Amino acid sequence: MKDQKKIFLNAGELLSRVRLRKPLVHHLTNWVTIYDCANIVKVAGASPVMAHAPEEAAAMSSLASSLVLNIGTLDAGLIESMKLAAASANRKKIPVILDVCGAGATDFRTSKCLELIDQAKIGIIKGNASEIAAVAGEAVLTKGVDSTEILQDHAEIAKKMARKHKCTVVITGEKDVISNGRKTYLISNGHIMMSDIVGTGCMAASCIGAFIAVEKDLVYAASSALLCFEIAAELASRRAKGPASFKAQLFDCLYKLNNNHIKKLQKIERI
Amino acid sequence: MKDQKKIFLNAGELLSRVRLRKPLVHHLTNWVTIYDCANIVKVAGASPVMAHAPEEAAAMSSLASSLVLNIGTLDAGLIESMKLAAASANRKKIPVILDVCGAGATDFRTSKCLELIDQAKIGIIKGNASEIAAVAGEAVLTKGVDSTEILQDHAEIAKKMARKHKCTVVITGEKDVISNGRKTYLISNGHIMMSDIVGTGCMAASCIGAFIAVEKDLVYAASSALLCFEIAAELASRRAKGPASFKAQLFDCLYKLNNNHIKKLQKIERI
Amino acid sequence: MKDQKKIFLNAGELLSRVRLRKPLVHHLTNWVTIYDCANIVKVAGASPVMAHAPEEAAAMSSLASSLVLNIGTLDAGLIESMKLAAASANRKKIPVILDVCGAGATDFRTSKCLELIDQAKIGIIKGNASEIAAVAGEAVLTKGVDSTEILQDHAEIAKKMARKHKCTVVITGEKDVISNGRKTYLISNGHIMMSDIVGTGCMAASCIGAFIAVEKDLVYAASSALLCFEIAAELASRRAKGPASFKAQLFDCLYKLNNNHIKKLQKIERI
Repeated sequence: MKDQKKIFLNAGELLSRVRLRKPLVHHLTNWVTIYDCANIVKVAGASPVMAHAPEEAAAMSSLASSLVLNIGTLDAGLIESMKLAAASANRKKIPVILDVCGAGATDFRTSKCLELIDQAKIGIIKGNASEIAAVAGEAVLTKGVDSTEILQDHAEIAKKMARKHKCTVVITGEKDVISNGRKTYLISNGHIMMSDIVGTGCMAASCIGAFIAVEKDLVYAASSALLCFEIAAELASRRAKGPASFKAQLFDCLYKLNNNHIKKLQKIERI
Repeated sequence: MKDQKKIFLNAGELLSRVRLRKPLVHHLTNWVTIYDCANIVKVAGASPVMAHAPEEAAAMSSLASSLVLNIGTLDAGLIESMKLAAASANRKKIPVILDVCGAGATDFRTSKCLELIDQAKIGIIKGNASEIAAVAGEAVLTKGVDSTEILQDHAEIAKKMARKHKCTVVITGEKDVISNGRKTYLISNGHIMMSDIVGTGCMAASCIGAFIAVEKDLVYAASSALLCFEIAAELASRRAKGPASFKAQLFDCLYKLNNNHIKKLQKIERI
Repeated sequence: MKDQKKIFLNAGELLSRVRLRKPLVHHLTNWVTIYDCANIVKVAGASPVMAHAPEEAAAMSSLASSLVLNIGTLDAGLIESMKLAAASANRKKIPVILDVCGAGATDFRTSKCLELIDQAKIGIIKGNASEIAAVAGEAVLTKGVDSTEILQDHAEIAKKMARKHKCTVVITGEKDVISNGRKTYLISNGHIMMSDIVGTGCMAASCIGAFIAVEKDLVYAASSALLCFEIAAELASRRAKGPASFKAQLFDCLYKLNNNHIKKLQKIERI
């Protein structure tokens, strides 16, 4: 990829802010990893809350510092609550992240994502490459054949979508792309063991939720959250003896993550 | 605080009864920590069951030895099922504990707690200080400035509420207050790491659910449950390397908790 | 029991197939152990997906290689989604396993199981002895007094029910019975610690879901899945210091399970 330039991001400063302010992070998320989402936000230093009833979703959002929407086990009622929560967050200028978990698998999932994106101001749309392609609103064909070309394709999709929806787009994968259409970052941290457990993607979105609660620059916040989460995963992998011990270590390592780890291990470029 | 008197509670005897009888503890609880609630009841020696459908909530309650209601992720339908379950438990004289999780955060939450308290005979109302204040039914202002005064306030709120609703009130915190209006206990066990993980409060309520299943004196049962749970947390903290390993140790330590631990470590006063 | 004959099952070959093909295993399951179900399928090498909305349950099933239905925390809406998912799976010849979790406890539970069995082609009906007896559709009284006689009873129930519904029946317990009415196996693997944690039965069903996704002979697939899961439990018990560490080890041991373990430790008979 041309114009690739290694940068340094002060992710540790944002992590300190999360730990100091302990922001309330409201979730309407899926029933599989809801427990992981709550725990990862907690060990990051923030306060998770989950309230999905239509009668209180908006009220709870208005008390929170950020809102995480994750459609992993959506149903029609939950989507309506998400709209109420997002509208409330929008009114109060509280940032919203949408994890388009499983988009593309069924038409229902994709169309409900599009409804959410159309009817609310979503600050960050996050998914893996195929999920983001599904909600990109047009046929996006990955043309690349080698990994550099594929990554270039991802960056183009992220930029285009970010410009279209005036938001930040996060495409997670072996390398993560984060773009607001003008500024595009590439993160190479993380560990292969992340794909051996359930919930890594959901936890990444919830971490981002904790960081956007304390920082308005969404590219900076999202990138910092991913750096912290993925560096914690690298540290966890060193002590893990299997998927379950890896997951336990992931929580413990994020809880203990310090500035030295972040400075020494971060791999981020501007592209 | 005046008239404070160290006492000894035979919590180990109740724990033995739980392990021997393996009572069925029915839950209608939240979707975040439902898994923790089930597991903590299991390692305490009892049998958890979760059945929230309106068609069977009452039938399942009538088979159980106690009922745990937790409004952490309430919705209108779940509250109706809770009412059915509680009415069934009341008819059969099966004790009910209500965890007013998050009460005060939204009007919906607070009003649904009050509905449950009004429409059913709740044996134990449990929450932290702000949650209990929210459902106390009148403006309760904490007037205390130092920790002793604050604790005195908590004890007054607990006593007053217990008398009003003819129930036992449990206020959890650094020190827990347990009162039925006549008898008031103060527990100082527990560990700061309990606040680093999600679900501690919910698990405490579920433990109490297991103990009231085998003992009619609700103050004795609730206090014994909290002693066992919090002494297990102290033991767990000694071996924990972070929040995830603390949680794993908490389950293992409660499973293995014996009379020597309970006798040696309990810190309980009558006030 | 007469005509008992030790056999050897190439369960390792099926486990390799799961790991190679990474089949999509669709679940409509309970909210307590949904997290365990997803994780056990993942560490077995397959890909779990959970989608319960009536609008997409059928579509998701049609994409999957098998369907797991578990009624642990059923409600009327979820059962309707299960019927849609099962009908879709039936049309595409995708195998379905039904875990009749808690059947017999309430009439609602038992009758909903019977509805599912009547209205869909269920490949495998799985439960413990009392759950299977409850859905056997007639009063089944265990007449046995010693463990051999009881086991004989279980085998008879399994065979009869398998013939009646033209399916495979799995009765889990200290010894598991697997029968399609013609072929009946008995598995003696597993460990007592499995009964100290929540979710063992659900995880067993989900493992079977992963194996039937790659093998049409349902008795072979179900037996292989149980062998792998229960041998992993035996290995886990060797390193476990309590229920929580046992559960973590169970995931890690299944993830690492190899052909040597399976060959050396399997205890299976044809009866």
